[in-house]
Amino acid sequence: MASPRPDDSDRFMRRALRLASRGRGRTSPNPMVGAVLVRDGEVVGEGFHRAVGEPHAEVEALAVAGARARGATLYVTLEPCCHHGRTGPCTDPVIAAGVRRVVVGVEDPNPRMCGRGVEKLRAAGIEVLVGVREEACRALNAGFLSLHERGRPHVLLKLAVTLDGRLAAAGGDSRWVTAPPARRRVQVMRAQHDAIAVGSETALRDDPLLTLRTATGRPRRRQPRRVIFDGRLRLRPGARLFTEPGGGRVVVVTRREAPEAARRRLREVGAEIVEVAADDAGLDLGQALAALGEMGILSVMCEGGAGLASSLLRAGLVDQLALFVAPKLLGGAHSLPMLGELGVQNMDSALMLGKMGVARVGPDLLITAVPER
Amino acid sequence: MASPRPDDSDRFMRRALRLASRGRGRTSPNPMVGAVLVRDGEVVGEGFHRAVGEPHAEVEALAVAGARARGATLYVTLEPCCHHGRTGPCTDPVIAAGVRRVVVGVEDPNPRMCGRGVEKLRAAGIEVLVGVREEACRALNAGFLSLHERGRPHVLLKLAVTLDGRLAAAGGDSRWVTAPPARRRVQVMRAQHDAIAVGSETALRDDPLLTLRTATGRPRRRQPRRVIFDGRLRLRPGARLFTEPGGGRVVVVTRREAPEAARRRLREVGAEIVEVAADDAGLDLGQALAALGEMGILSVMCEGGAGLASSLLRAGLVDQLALFVAPKLLGGAHSLPMLGELGVQNMDSALMLGKMGVARVGPDLLITAVPER
Repeated sequence: MASPRPDDSDRFMRRALRLASRGRGRTSPNPMVGAVLVRDGEVVGEGFHRAVGEPHAEVEALAVAGARARGATLYVTLEPCCHHGRTGPCTDPVIAAGVRRVVVGVEDPNPRMCGRGVEKLRAAGIEVLVGVREEACRALNAGFLSLHERGRPHVLLKLAVTLDGRLAAAGGDSRWVTAPPARRRVQVMRAQHDAIAVGSETALRDDPLLTLRTATGRPRRRQPRRVIFDGRLRLRPGARLFTEPGGGRVVVVTRREAPEAARRRLREVGAEIVEVAADDAGLDLGQALAALGEMGILSVMCEGGAGLASSLLRAGLVDQLALFVAPKLLGGAHSLPMLGELGVQNMDSALMLGKMGVARVGPDLLITAVPER
Repeated sequence: MASPRPDDSDRFMRRALRLASRGRGRTSPNPMVGAVLVRDGEVVGEGFHRAVGEPHAEVEALAVAGARARGATLYVTLEPCCHHGRTGPCTDPVIAAGVRRVVVGVEDPNPRMCGRGVEKLRAAGIEVLVGVREEACRALNAGFLSLHERGRPHVLLKLAVTLDGRLAAAGGDSRWVTAPPARRRVQVMRAQHDAIAVGSETALRDDPLLTLRTATGRPRRRQPRRVIFDGRLRLRPGARLFTEPGGGRVVVVTRREAPEAARRRLREVGAEIVEVAADDAGLDLGQALAALGEMGILSVMCEGGAGLASSLLRAGLVDQLALFVAPKLLGGAHSLPMLGELGVQNMDSALMLGKMGVARVGPDLLITAVPER
């Protein structure tokens, strides 16, 4: 049997990536994984991890291939696991099926697992190649990798501003900065995250729902959790977050010293309270994100306001910035700037951004960038 | 002789436009004009207005064509003049040369002239078609048209900001917001304008030169005028505007009540003082622009700061916005926002922008837009 050509690896890994992404929004806290089994240049089986609790991608692909898996090459976006989770290790059935060669996109980031699946396959005499389309495989599971490599979820900071960088007019009026196409895009982004977060100021001012809605306006079945950073526990039990049906579970992050009576009132309307350390500058956001990670949240989309956004940026906790920019100007000393204090004194010490991208979304722009450490 | 096909008109007018633009930066206060003479589908002569004082485009084209102009079609970006300026009317030689047909891009905007050239040609039995590629012909001479149609120069507002809409850091430090490619682009933009304008705050804080420089850093020969809006006449005679050689003439716009001693000091170092009405809100900018127009300035590029930019926007005097956006964040309550008060109270009354465009310039973005009235 001839070894596959290099461009075959690329082609089949792209197929595995496409399959993997079909699980988007349903696999968390597991990663999205896709697998393709190829024998003699022909796909004999494929699969993806459909949802948490469902079979792993490799097992699905093997089931489709049956006896044709013998001697085949397995393309899989993430290193096969070798530990007993909900569904058992994947390395065993791969070995048992007589797979001859395994091509892996990216190693399992879990420090206890990293490379162990590969080792086990190699020990069984299987040829293993790691790192095909690694960047794309990493991007696919940015949240999962972030949690296992850094102990916190991936954080996207999304803001919608006027061209002069304002979140809201003088009276606090922020409806709407952007046009419907941008707001629909925000719904798509929400669907790709395990949690949506805002600061208490925004929660109080806008009284937002933070739900995922269908095109008809009804809430969708699967909802991201709603996280409110509320150091002083000012959130009211009468907020629409609690009174309107259909949204995800509400998690309120507050300081350890927050009054018990206020916690109780919020718990009574269904909030989960997470307490973290705090100082004069506010909540310890690193601790807060670690706590969210422990709850199985792989990815957080922060939607403002300026205070939470600045604190996250200042703490180096923003992995990606998504800025919707509307073709309008607010001006004014009293309108709301998109960021508060970043501790920057001069132009040379500005917070630098890399990988800037720009796209049109209806009449608005979407500018994306990655804060540089 | 068969009439030219419609797409010939378009093709030859595009050629005339390209020719016209070769006079860019040298024709003011005249318009840029290009002319192409075509007989039997063949170009027999072409020309453009090279510089103020030089022959008009039509006359150049006729000189090239000689006797072949007889029976030809003349494509010209702007209605031929019928008045005696520095170089005499253009309609006479067109008629004398026996041109059979004239295709005009846009009518002369001068209310005293508008349509008169066309009338004169028609009276001489020449077939005249007006409005081929009119939009492009208008855009080419936006300044000339603005002055003759509205009595003021065309105004481009150019600002350079961080992605959070800041002009300068807390300490006033604005060097540099953008990278060298954007700063080179600004030089190109300056070369296309008759005047560069800044507010006194910017003049005092940055002590800028506002010159046009060659790639080697030396000042270029032809310099746009430098206009400082300085209601309180705070500009110092020791400013680099006056002490460094090579820049364009400095025009200081101030209020009628400005103290004579301050005027004298600035006049002594070469400034031209223009006085306009003023109230508590500041200088009457409409009056100021009209005065600049009377000085033969067709186009003004305002480069800030926030105060002048906001005043121009608020007065509806900005024709085009060019915003360079750098991939960096300043944040902070003390950094300088790109705009001051626009008198906007809520999102619905924001100053709307149209025709938004975006392009990459090195690591930065250039966002262009047109304020809607």
